[in-house]
Amino acid sequence: MKHKSFEGVACPVARGLELVGEWWSILILREAFNGATKFDEFQRDVEGIAPNTLTRRLKELVEHGLLSKRAYSKHPPRYEYVLTPRGKDFLPVLWALMQWGNKHCAPEGDITQLRNIKTKKKAVPYVADRNTGEEMNPADYRLVAGPGATDGVRARFPASRLSE
Amino acid sequence: MKHKSFEGVACPVARGLELVGEWWSILILREAFNGATKFDEFQRDVEGIAPNTLTRRLKELVEHGLLSKRAYSKHPPRYEYVLTPRGKDFLPVLWALMQWGNKHCAPEGDITQLRNIKTKKKAVPYVADRNTGEEMNPADYRLVAGPGATDGVRARFPASRLSE
Repeated sequence: MKHKSFEGVACPVARGLELVGEWWSILILREAFNGATKFDEFQRDVEGIAPNTLTRRLKELVEHGLLSKRAYSKHPPRYEYVLTPRGKDFLPVLWALMQWGNKHCAPEGDITQLRNIKTKKKAVPYVADRNTGEEMNPADYRLVAGPGATDGVRARFPASRLSE
Repeated sequence: MKHKSFEGVACPVARGLELVGEWWSILILREAFNGATKFDEFQRDVEGIAPNTLTRRLKELVEHGLLSKRAYSKHPPRYEYVLTPRGKDFLPVLWALMQWGNKHCAPEGDITQLRNIKTKKKAVPYVADRNTGEEMNPADYRLVAGPGATDGVRARFPASRLSE
């Protein structure tokens, strides 16, 4: 069952989800960041994925511009899948998800960790705001309509929320 | 169709995905952060969600500890759904996803923006490392097995990767 399409929906989160696809796609992206490029590598590293699902998800990630497909052999024809800039930009989402997963779903201790190659220390990812350079505190931010908002979004998230 | 369960899988990203549920669940969490607590509010604000899907997803988010359900009226019995600490911790994932969605899926301009109530400026979320206080540069980090890793993960992501 295909989930409902969010393409026409006025929310960057919903559209982002639409573009990425499904859970499997996120795990495929995870392996792309871990260095996988070939079908067999994704098949080996994305635990439990069926070949037809992998084929479909790779195609979708290429269509949506997160991976690019290129031939690395002509005879026989062989392809590899490489992260595009749009795909690479998804990495912080994975980091945020990994941090949450380690904190809340790994009672036996971190399963994997990101470690800094210079300090050898474990990364503790958090989200900061480029305009302040500081960690984002939910209490300091409000969601308001942007320049691309629909009338509905504008009515629901007016700029006046900033002074509430 | 329920996606494959990732519960037994040795990856914090996969486990995090399992706990959150599906796309719909992420949009429900989005509305919880926007202040929705009642069934009718989620129904109104999560565009296109069917009542039975909403019922199922709310139940799942409660079971997985991201929302808590409490009665706000006894006669008639009425319930509201409130973010738990585990649910609140998911917000940075939404911020990261929103940033990516606005950058890559909103050619007409940002649909919604997070704005700082003090500076009125738009947030530009990025992921930093609490140990360095700096933006995480992918080149500076390696994924290695943590204390909760399985043998397979340990073999694949040995600590020696840090000096490669």
